[in-house]
Amino acid sequence: MTRGLECYDCGYTSDDQTESRCRCGESLWFSTDTNEFAWPTEAWTNGMWRYADVLPVSKPVGVTPGGTPLVRADRLDEYAGCRLSLKVEAQNPTGSFKDRGSAVGVRHATEIGRDWVGTVSHGNMALSTSAYAAAAGLECAVFVPAETPEQRLELIARHDPHIFRVEGDYGRLYEQTLALEAPITFVNSDTPLRVAGQKTVAYEICEQLAPSVPDAIVLPISSGGQASGVWTALRELEAAGLIDDLPRLYGVQAAACDPIATAYREGRESVTAVDAAETIAVSIANSDPPSGTRALAAARATDGAVVSVSDDATRKAMDRLATAVGLSVEPSSAVALAGVRKLSDAGELAADDEVVTILTGSGYKERYETDVESRTKTIDLEALEAELEGILEGSEGDVSRQTNDR
Amino acid sequence: MTRGLECYDCGYTSDDQTESRCRCGESLWFSTDTNEFAWPTEAWTNGMWRYADVLPVSKPVGVTPGGTPLVRADRLDEYAGCRLSLKVEAQNPTGSFKDRGSAVGVRHATEIGRDWVGTVSHGNMALSTSAYAAAAGLECAVFVPAETPEQRLELIARHDPHIFRVEGDYGRLYEQTLALEAPITFVNSDTPLRVAGQKTVAYEICEQLAPSVPDAIVLPISSGGQASGVWTALRELEAAGLIDDLPRLYGVQAAACDPIATAYREGRESVTAVDAAETIAVSIANSDPPSGTRALAAARATDGAVVSVSDDATRKAMDRLATAVGLSVEPSSAVALAGVRKLSDAGELAADDEVVTILTGSGYKERYETDVESRTKTIDLEALEAELEGILEGSEGDVSRQTNDR
Repeated sequence: MTRGLECYDCGYTSDDQTESRCRCGESLWFSTDTNEFAWPTEAWTNGMWRYADVLPVSKPVGVTPGGTPLVRADRLDEYAGCRLSLKVEAQNPTGSFKDRGSAVGVRHATEIGRDWVGTVSHGNMALSTSAYAAAAGLECAVFVPAETPEQRLELIARHDPHIFRVEGDYGRLYEQTLALEAPITFVNSDTPLRVAGQKTVAYEICEQLAPSVPDAIVLPISSGGQASGVWTALRELEAAGLIDDLPRLYGVQAAACDPIATAYREGRESVTAVDAAETIAVSIANSDPPSGTRALAAARATDGAVVSVSDDATRKAMDRLATAVGLSVEPSSAVALAGVRKLSDAGELAADDEVVTILTGSGYKERYETDVESRTKTIDLEALEAELEGILEGSEGDVSRQTNDR
Repeated sequence: MTRGLECYDCGYTSDDQTESRCRCGESLWFSTDTNEFAWPTEAWTNGMWRYADVLPVSKPVGVTPGGTPLVRADRLDEYAGCRLSLKVEAQNPTGSFKDRGSAVGVRHATEIGRDWVGTVSHGNMALSTSAYAAAAGLECAVFVPAETPEQRLELIARHDPHIFRVEGDYGRLYEQTLALEAPITFVNSDTPLRVAGQKTVAYEICEQLAPSVPDAIVLPISSGGQASGVWTALRELEAAGLIDDLPRLYGVQAAACDPIATAYREGRESVTAVDAAETIAVSIANSDPPSGTRALAAARATDGAVVSVSDDATRKAMDRLATAVGLSVEPSSAVALAGVRKLSDAGELAADDEVVTILTGSGYKERYETDVESRTKTIDLEALEAELEGILEGSEGDVSRQTNDR
């Protein structure tokens, strides 16, 4: 039911599915007719492919992305200042939300007879694209910044892509790959094929909560591609009559690198590059986001906002997720929960608002500076019973975890 | 529909759900009446809790385990020597199959009013139990060998358990914790609560393939707890009339530490401890498996077998999964695929056999010795177009990945 590409901003349309950019400079996305769309009847074990009718490709490829849990996290309500649910995108095959877009992009490449796919990324997207290319039997070119640490490349290299460490302006590289006339499908983070795949997360959230509709969806923003996907999905579901109101869309960035939040704060209509500082949220540290203006438009059009949070707030949110929900996420995901708290404090979210936070990626793929020492004790096997008695007694009356304090 | 505990071997039954061991020495499991059981009608997004009717607990806790993909991996058929499907247990909340058992054990602990849970593990089970205890607001005691590397403890520590590095005989520690009279629920790897949770993977496999039934299920074996869970599930599904024949159960161990395979090979009825050597399959290197004899019985009763594979075969299987299916698994999971190949070569599996392999855990939680160098090239942004042309030309006629050679 996709009808070719269109520009959300100037209305340009195109039938050439290999385009990415509109003549006006904005990014294109797929236009999809959802007037006849109803919630699918197939099993959820088909994951995102349940929504094949609204995707530009029909057949699955690789391990099934999507069908991830939506968890009501009432233990975090007081911390979050609202009724919080978590969409756990870490439970995709390569541990992040990127698998949805990679699967669509790679399948499309095979459908038009391409032997190669490519991407510009040094993290989740590089890993995901490499894995899906491998599953489809395609060659994959991954362009990473020259300084990408070997440790991260090791994960990517397992899926046998061609890795190019590129010296030069990384922002320019992103656009340059899209302009290449080589027979290679680039599935960069805000390209139409990827956005089409990413949108399925919003389809799932709405179907999992149906007939309720969340008051707000809060997600991390980097390139703006994922926010664009969620926005287009909500518009499509509204056109299908499956949701009455669009949830408010809130984007969250790291304060050290927040071009979209800055534009929102300053009341501007378009996003421009910023000078970024270091942040622990490396996966979303995009100082010149290609779909930044579109993400900004999504937040404004839905009565949402774009905010940024400190690394300290992000660390605390990560810790809350790990110790109160049992979920380890990467800092670039935890920013979303830190953002929820900030938005509640600012009165943007109310205590009875139903809020869904998209946790984009697993924390288990990296090592963090966790305090292991204070949680660890070395004992002798012979002392086991005594040790155990000691801790059980020591914790009496103080045994319940303190998770509801703010 | 659970009716208390029973011993598969001597028939002893008990209503005391905190027991773990039979008087005969074998491990107990839950007896479950499945005569009235039918495939559930709820959505698959409820994961393993769809099978709450056959579990000893009713209410979910933590992030939903289960509902993992079952993927037909035809690109590996030639390598595997059969029609291969993969059950991707890496897509559970903490990246391994252990979440199923942890969720049941932790929920049970809350239901009987316990403030503490515990486990004896230095890997996936420790991580999983810590995460589910955190989600339930319980304190968690994790007993690890004194020499467990800090890097692995860091993942576990995120969920804020009490970690005890124990100096002494680790095998004895396992049994000693189960005999403790302290008010703490130990969810060790072959305890009845854990086995009850682990069995849901076999319910899912059979439901995902229904009305077909796989000819064989191949899985890694360590303590024997998971194999016990799969066996009891298949017996329950047969009693329910949902499968006619039991699939043959095959267990796979690492050759360096293969007490169950050794007992099978030698035609013995019970498993005894072996002197183990080093193996890359650290998660299954159990030289004295507490449910080894039960796992052996499962293989024999279903006309299966228990075999072991070399680390070299395991490395090759890992690489195949990563480069032909896009799945990175830990060595202790890859042994199962290496086992499939070995069983095919031995004539145990036929080319038209439908075989399901359980891939127990993600490979992304650890770093391996992947050859990054040969896959990586440093280039200048200005040279991008020329570089790309070079690789595209260089690969002409040779572009399809070689995945079907044996």
